[in-house]
Amino acid sequence: MTYCLALKLTEGLVCLSDTRTNAGVDNIAKYRKTFTWSVPGDRAIVMMTAGNLAVTQAVMSLLQENIDHPESGIETLFTAPSMFRVAEIVGDAMRVVQNRYGPGLSAMGESAVSSIILAGQRAGGKGRLFHVYSAGNFIEATEDTPYFQIGEHKYGKPILDRVITPETPLETGITAALLSMDSTLRSNLSVGMPLDLSVIKASEIGIVHERRIEENDANFLHLSDSWSAALRSAFADMTGIRV
Amino acid sequence: MTYCLALKLTEGLVCLSDTRTNAGVDNIAKYRKTFTWSVPGDRAIVMMTAGNLAVTQAVMSLLQENIDHPESGIETLFTAPSMFRVAEIVGDAMRVVQNRYGPGLSAMGESAVSSIILAGQRAGGKGRLFHVYSAGNFIEATEDTPYFQIGEHKYGKPILDRVITPETPLETGITAALLSMDSTLRSNLSVGMPLDLSVIKASEIGIVHERRIEENDANFLHLSDSWSAALRSAFADMTGIRV
Repeated sequence: MTYCLALKLTEGLVCLSDTRTNAGVDNIAKYRKTFTWSVPGDRAIVMMTAGNLAVTQAVMSLLQENIDHPESGIETLFTAPSMFRVAEIVGDAMRVVQNRYGPGLSAMGESAVSSIILAGQRAGGKGRLFHVYSAGNFIEATEDTPYFQIGEHKYGKPILDRVITPETPLETGITAALLSMDSTLRSNLSVGMPLDLSVIKASEIGIVHERRIEENDANFLHLSDSWSAALRSAFADMTGIRV
Repeated sequence: MTYCLALKLTEGLVCLSDTRTNAGVDNIAKYRKTFTWSVPGDRAIVMMTAGNLAVTQAVMSLLQENIDHPESGIETLFTAPSMFRVAEIVGDAMRVVQNRYGPGLSAMGESAVSSIILAGQRAGGKGRLFHVYSAGNFIEATEDTPYFQIGEHKYGKPILDRVITPETPLETGITAALLSMDSTLRSNLSVGMPLDLSVIKASEIGIVHERRIEENDANFLHLSDSWSAALRSAFADMTGIRV
């Protein structure tokens, strides 16, 4: 399984992913699911992936191959004139990979289902957030629900629903994303540390702030423990209410 | 969908179920999923059901039919000498119904999967809690995980994991069950009010305390609102922690 989430806030885009992959519970491994591209002053792009690992790795490699070979003249993440066009390019790459491997996987009873969260901003544009599906189609986050989740989304959804609005400050959004991940880590063994946090500040076009949060990260452990204590304390206050 | 949960505490058994059933999102209805049997001084039994409604209703009716016709000499919920034997009787009824309708449902591509939470106590025995599966087999709750959930279990699980132990007082357990249900109601449209709360106090053999909590129940609304406020407040305290 996997858990990745992204917030689209006025102050910027927050992306957080775990790193656990598994083929059955007896075969787990650690893979980066966050991929970033950045041209300071021009554009910043973050993608996070879930689903069939071979499919999503192939999509990421195909996108990178085209960037690495500008002589081919193919439009790339670096040349697309808008984030909408970037989303189309990612969706097209997904369709190419699905057409190549989907029938074979299907014949073997394996799932090719994959999804990608795409967050990015171009100079002159606002931060935009997309959810690309297996068929290459996609939806964009709006003000009504300014976040996307892929993979194991249920455990970490309530905190987002309760506290995230487009006006949420960036630091608050990062905290909410980490607590959403913390709830998921506690309940689903197929979601695991370390975490990859990427932030695109609206005011710093083209820069992705990246950080890997390891299992023994003192600040994350402190946040996790404090949240546990705060929830227990909040619950203790509830028990006075007779239903 | 459905959400039912039961806690096995030293002070007693707490059972809570919603009442929403649905066949697709365009066909929702209200059905009681909690069924109780009680012989004051002798035994108290609560069952909650999830899955195929025709299957679980048939199981409940079959169990009741046998109680209503003691001349048949068939062992029933009222004559079984132990809660373990009650669980076997429920499992047997499940197998009878599955054998009758399972193949036909399967041929039509419909699922016969169903599950039952069985909570009960006999005079001279302790409260016991079972989870009966579609095949009629079952597991019993132990001290390590003193609760069961059926149906949409994910949203309401974190609160139980954080606060429920066998030593949790009964009133605290009821509050935790209601908050677990509240989180699920907020996130899954196929779980809906009103709720059915049933409690078997260990000290009052054979008595089931039952209560229906309607949508406009002032105390439940107050609990729900207070919990929202407490969570927001707890979250506000977290945002000072820099990760």
